[in-house]
Amino acid sequence: MALKNNFADRLIAEIDKKQNPSVVGLDTSFAKIPDFFKKDFMGSYELAFQSASQAVYEFNKKIIDAIYDIVPCVKLQLAYYEELGDYGMEAFRKTAYYAKTRGLLVIADAKRNDIGTTCKAYSSAFLGETNIFGTQRSVFDTDCLTVNGYLGYEGVEPFINDCEAFGKGIFVLVKTSNPGSQEFQCLDTASGLKIYQVMGNLVAEWGKSLVGEEGYSSVGAVVGATFPEEAKVLRSAMPNTVFLVPGYGAQGGTADDVMPCFNRDGLGAIVNSSRKIIFAFQGKNDDNNFADYARQAAIDMREDLRKALIKEDIYRWN
Amino acid sequence: MALKNNFADRLIAEIDKKQNPSVVGLDTSFAKIPDFFKKDFMGSYELAFQSASQAVYEFNKKIIDAIYDIVPCVKLQLAYYEELGDYGMEAFRKTAYYAKTRGLLVIADAKRNDIGTTCKAYSSAFLGETNIFGTQRSVFDTDCLTVNGYLGYEGVEPFINDCEAFGKGIFVLVKTSNPGSQEFQCLDTASGLKIYQVMGNLVAEWGKSLVGEEGYSSVGAVVGATFPEEAKVLRSAMPNTVFLVPGYGAQGGTADDVMPCFNRDGLGAIVNSSRKIIFAFQGKNDDNNFADYARQAAIDMREDLRKALIKEDIYRWN
Repeated sequence: MALKNNFADRLIAEIDKKQNPSVVGLDTSFAKIPDFFKKDFMGSYELAFQSASQAVYEFNKKIIDAIYDIVPCVKLQLAYYEELGDYGMEAFRKTAYYAKTRGLLVIADAKRNDIGTTCKAYSSAFLGETNIFGTQRSVFDTDCLTVNGYLGYEGVEPFINDCEAFGKGIFVLVKTSNPGSQEFQCLDTASGLKIYQVMGNLVAEWGKSLVGEEGYSSVGAVVGATFPEEAKVLRSAMPNTVFLVPGYGAQGGTADDVMPCFNRDGLGAIVNSSRKIIFAFQGKNDDNNFADYARQAAIDMREDLRKALIKEDIYRWN
Repeated sequence: MALKNNFADRLIAEIDKKQNPSVVGLDTSFAKIPDFFKKDFMGSYELAFQSASQAVYEFNKKIIDAIYDIVPCVKLQLAYYEELGDYGMEAFRKTAYYAKTRGLLVIADAKRNDIGTTCKAYSSAFLGETNIFGTQRSVFDTDCLTVNGYLGYEGVEPFINDCEAFGKGIFVLVKTSNPGSQEFQCLDTASGLKIYQVMGNLVAEWGKSLVGEEGYSSVGAVVGATFPEEAKVLRSAMPNTVFLVPGYGAQGGTADDVMPCFNRDGLGAIVNSSRKIIFAFQGKNDDNNFADYARQAAIDMREDLRKALIKEDIYRWN
């Protein structure tokens, strides 16, 4: 029962079902939605923010309908919903719910962090439940949340408790995909390890209690596709940790670049692509078929990863 | 004109006006609002979340009315609003707006962080503007945002750009107030500095372009009241940086503990107290007068800081 509810096991089951370790990032910037699509929503609500948020939600539904049978997971980047205020957060909540009705696991990419008592409230929002007038209610009810570990275990523990209680997961930032991540994360510590390695070791330690039947923990790590050397170091230091790998596609990471994030069992990593999938219509002069372009881009990414995994001799679905 | 719009200058002007370097934290956990007050909202809206969020907003208004003439700033902890979902974020937006109509500066304590392109969207949400159907619109329009610098300057730059364009500020996490912050932030780096010192030096560097007329930058630092020794080290390393100081009050920090956060001009720090102010009614058996207790607690805190500043001979309002 407890094992069945382990997030890492659930994730691996979905990856195996779709034979695809990839994630579509719903980084749905309102500015980038096709004009013809946006126009339908202009003036449909009293408030501009409400109309814009409705457009984001309906766009997301079309994307989800186009990719739900191909990928195991979607990742919603909170910034693009907060940018539209509380109505944007409504679009976030409704998108997460819709994705789950389509059988997708939902990662909230929110990189939340705070002191323990406060993190408990963030955890209630995304992973657990809030007590409202005497009733425990789930709020956004996503499967998984990204977290920043700068405040130490004390700021991560409330999330881990909810992971255990509700079968949820977290991914803690270790080595991020942005070029500027080197500035801080690659500084040497006195122990001889770099800061990102220290964080990696902490994350592996924090996740020990949540290792599932498949040998992976529900406490994962964010490790960017753009730094294959660092990924290799982390992979060997954190054998039981699932890596959420941003940076493939628009940020320049290739399928070969992400291979060091996988273990020899062909598991241990899920690779995210956002803009290159959901805005694949850009430059095609055929905006009306944006969903078809997204579907094709998701299929192309699956194929790209498949070839690279076969080349590495770690493709597990032959 | 540009100088007049500098956030650090605006903050100092408000501190001088109220003769009080303190901040009231609106960490308005719905669970902690008095029962008699909550009851009025039960069933007032179709959805439980909407009713609960309305209760939070109305509670905040009473607190703001009770303290707006005493303190220069309020700090809204996002976790307690997200915990109520998108309706909670509506309560956040409306509370921030109401506080500004009462002449208060508003800090969004959100500790946001991401790669550059994504941070731009967070910055649009809290500090800048989002383009909606061709019109630039402010969203939450808070004066200031807390930020986590783990991703390096690239993840902070979009905030700094909006600080400059819109006269806003940020506080970057340097040494947090939680006991567990030592685990990561106090590790030694190869340079001989601890991680929090490295972050402190980066923050001071990042803020150089935004130093205002009073000699302080709009890029501030979060430095917990619970670690006076670390605060002393940071104060001398970062003379032009304003410290946002959590941890006074409920977390155990005293007025004496926060003195190392101030410079000799009696500026350079704003001290936050949340639960000890807004939930000061707890244990008094007189819930109806919760706003009066909050007002008295805010006055007591001002007096407590005044005495400590006088003792240090840095009280600037004689």
